[in-house]
Amino acid sequence: MDMISILEQKKRGLPLSREQISFFVKGAADGSIPPYQLSALLMAIRLNGMNDRETVDLTMEMAASGDMLSPEVDGVPVDKHSTGGVGDTTTLVLAPLVAACGGKVLKMSGRGLGHTGGTLDKMESIPGMRVELPEEEFVSIVRSIGCAVVGQSAKLAPADKALYALRDVTATVDSIPLIVSSILSKKFAAGTEAIVLDVKAGSGALMPTLEASIDLAKAMVKIGNQAGRRILAVVSGMEEPLGSHVGNALEVKEAIDILAGRAGGPLKRVSLFLGSQMLVASGVAKTEEEALSMLNHVLDSGAGLEKLKEMIRAQGGDARVCDDVSLLPKAPVLYAVKARQDGWLAHANGMALGLAAQRMGAGRMRKEDVIDPAVGFVMEKRIGDFVRAGETVCTLHAASMESALETEPRILDALTFTDVPAPKARLLYALVKPEGVTELNE
Amino acid sequence: MDMISILEQKKRGLPLSREQISFFVKGAADGSIPPYQLSALLMAIRLNGMNDRETVDLTMEMAASGDMLSPEVDGVPVDKHSTGGVGDTTTLVLAPLVAACGGKVLKMSGRGLGHTGGTLDKMESIPGMRVELPEEEFVSIVRSIGCAVVGQSAKLAPADKALYALRDVTATVDSIPLIVSSILSKKFAAGTEAIVLDVKAGSGALMPTLEASIDLAKAMVKIGNQAGRRILAVVSGMEEPLGSHVGNALEVKEAIDILAGRAGGPLKRVSLFLGSQMLVASGVAKTEEEALSMLNHVLDSGAGLEKLKEMIRAQGGDARVCDDVSLLPKAPVLYAVKARQDGWLAHANGMALGLAAQRMGAGRMRKEDVIDPAVGFVMEKRIGDFVRAGETVCTLHAASMESALETEPRILDALTFTDVPAPKARLLYALVKPEGVTELNE
Repeated sequence: MDMISILEQKKRGLPLSREQISFFVKGAADGSIPPYQLSALLMAIRLNGMNDRETVDLTMEMAASGDMLSPEVDGVPVDKHSTGGVGDTTTLVLAPLVAACGGKVLKMSGRGLGHTGGTLDKMESIPGMRVELPEEEFVSIVRSIGCAVVGQSAKLAPADKALYALRDVTATVDSIPLIVSSILSKKFAAGTEAIVLDVKAGSGALMPTLEASIDLAKAMVKIGNQAGRRILAVVSGMEEPLGSHVGNALEVKEAIDILAGRAGGPLKRVSLFLGSQMLVASGVAKTEEEALSMLNHVLDSGAGLEKLKEMIRAQGGDARVCDDVSLLPKAPVLYAVKARQDGWLAHANGMALGLAAQRMGAGRMRKEDVIDPAVGFVMEKRIGDFVRAGETVCTLHAASMESALETEPRILDALTFTDVPAPKARLLYALVKPEGVTELNE
Repeated sequence: MDMISILEQKKRGLPLSREQISFFVKGAADGSIPPYQLSALLMAIRLNGMNDRETVDLTMEMAASGDMLSPEVDGVPVDKHSTGGVGDTTTLVLAPLVAACGGKVLKMSGRGLGHTGGTLDKMESIPGMRVELPEEEFVSIVRSIGCAVVGQSAKLAPADKALYALRDVTATVDSIPLIVSSILSKKFAAGTEAIVLDVKAGSGALMPTLEASIDLAKAMVKIGNQAGRRILAVVSGMEEPLGSHVGNALEVKEAIDILAGRAGGPLKRVSLFLGSQMLVASGVAKTEEEALSMLNHVLDSGAGLEKLKEMIRAQGGDARVCDDVSLLPKAPVLYAVKARQDGWLAHANGMALGLAAQRMGAGRMRKEDVIDPAVGFVMEKRIGDFVRAGETVCTLHAASMESALETEPRILDALTFTDVPAPKARLLYALVKPEGVTELNE
């Protein structure tokens, strides 16, 4: 077995054997295969693809490249994974709600990079919150409380770390077998048995078209199912930020507002939909309808907000933020971005809005960048809304007036107004299960 | 300009601009682009190709990545380049003959790697011979004597060195734009104005099929012509070793034997054909017929052998080998490999024969291997010959009896005998010029 014959085979478009896949995954994890050979293979995989059997093998080998957990959580460990969005705080809304219904949410999250935010960064805007917990502590919190949100342990799927770092710098991120194996290997290694995927479609999404997003969702569900997991995917819209709040502490505030019954809208709707799928996938509810009624019940009773407090406390954070959101970090400058003319908000460039927040300090351009938890913005209008000239479309929470003035044109450039009525943005496109695709029209 | 956008573009199958090509070639030469990005690009080029304009740009940028010579040799500097064969000593036959006719042969050669021999290694089997000469000395020898054979200076086309080292370990050698730019960039940097290419076809050749060899020849001639050089390619056969002798000192002996009029056969025929093309391309002769008659004249008069002596002397070697080949290194063990049954020699695996010589010590598996100039073998039969059981098909010149016994089955396994008459192997398939392809039937 040698790397050159593996490269030769994939270059010619032939499938790799399980042994060949195991060889290069182990070599990626232990550093015995040099990066220049791995990156050539990644490009060959990006261009010549992998069949389903290869993708399953790659996923299983990557999962097995480090520790494999079998968490005892007194239930079916369930996770939700999003391909990354802007203003997408569903985790902080649905994890406590699902746990309050009896689900066991084993949530491993990432940090933000590029235009999308990261759940860990949002969590850390809560004073005292710890997100790097030892495996035993994390599992014990899920067992007793029902949910915990932590960072991925370096011991899980180390091959993915090595390959992902190379994909990022070799233009090989957009490969379905590489995306599928990267996402699912970490879930498998963490011992997750039920997985709900949230695949975004739209201007702020990973995949360039709705069709590509649906293809990715289908591929992940097929591979996860072949690997014996209960898995389904929701294809949801990312034309504009999902919640109205973009930025770390701002997004935590919006999640608390929803759990406290003070806010609603698309973030709440998508969180409840994803949460209902998690309850069904993990066997806590029998049907989507039953699951939704359970979720609405714990939302209305305040049990969801109570669960969030328990989780924050268990992870060392100051749970008082749930009763008093003014304890969250606050930016010194509030600045209203106003519409320059009358019109319907017809289009928002999700990626440009995400990048605008990042440049304000809410995200990272490079891994070593330090983020400012307080900054970001609140969208006051959504696609389809009519806006009058001079009306506020967005409120910036900036670190300085200079930053606000720099951000204003970026926000306005990301928005397109028309003089004819524009439809609202789609929230939910499709539900993809192993047995087929159901179109959603919301 | 950044490497990720270059990777992105080639990944999508789009052509790269001259500026983009210049950027990555400079980065390869000065080490500012990491190998893992270069290797991903090489794989993308291997799989998505390059158009003619890109290939010309790549060739010119690689040539310009180091010194660009304008050698004053009192004539048109001409070079011959072979894609690599087994028992292929045409350079040592044709360089002195062409020089004796008035040509200026500026020959930069390589060392052997894998199954094919290297002219520099053959030269160094002549006691005292120096092949690493300063540029001025090399040019001065060509000006006064008419020919010199030296190693490629590290100052010429350094980008090719960096890219070639990566291609070798990433299964990206077999890419026409990468082969063309690698070969031609070095010739352009050396200031060669007329170039005759010898593209091998057959079991010992770089390209897997005759069609692929002809395609490579056409691509090189087209690109060289677009870059303003006088260029043509001969597609010649490599089904079996070209000369009967394989191994460094053994091949020098065969070249001397031909120049001394003691030997003939396919090596002589192909050398004269290539030499005649060099004389026409560099304007020394008007037609192929005139060139052939000039070459036969200097061969018969002994002027060719005299020129080889002059060249050896100028490069510090012991020219007495030309009069007494027994002064060349000799192997201690001679061993006759005999046919096991009657039959016609129908097929020879050129690559297997080349590898057998390499394992005897005549070549290198890795760059740091030391070669033994004395070892190798002499084929006593050619494809199409009838052989009786017990007749010698090959004489091994081995370092030890152990090596001989190890090599014997490798030689026999590489030969296929049939009980029906087999045709001789083809020597010359095609002559490729900018104006078109002429089929050759020899």
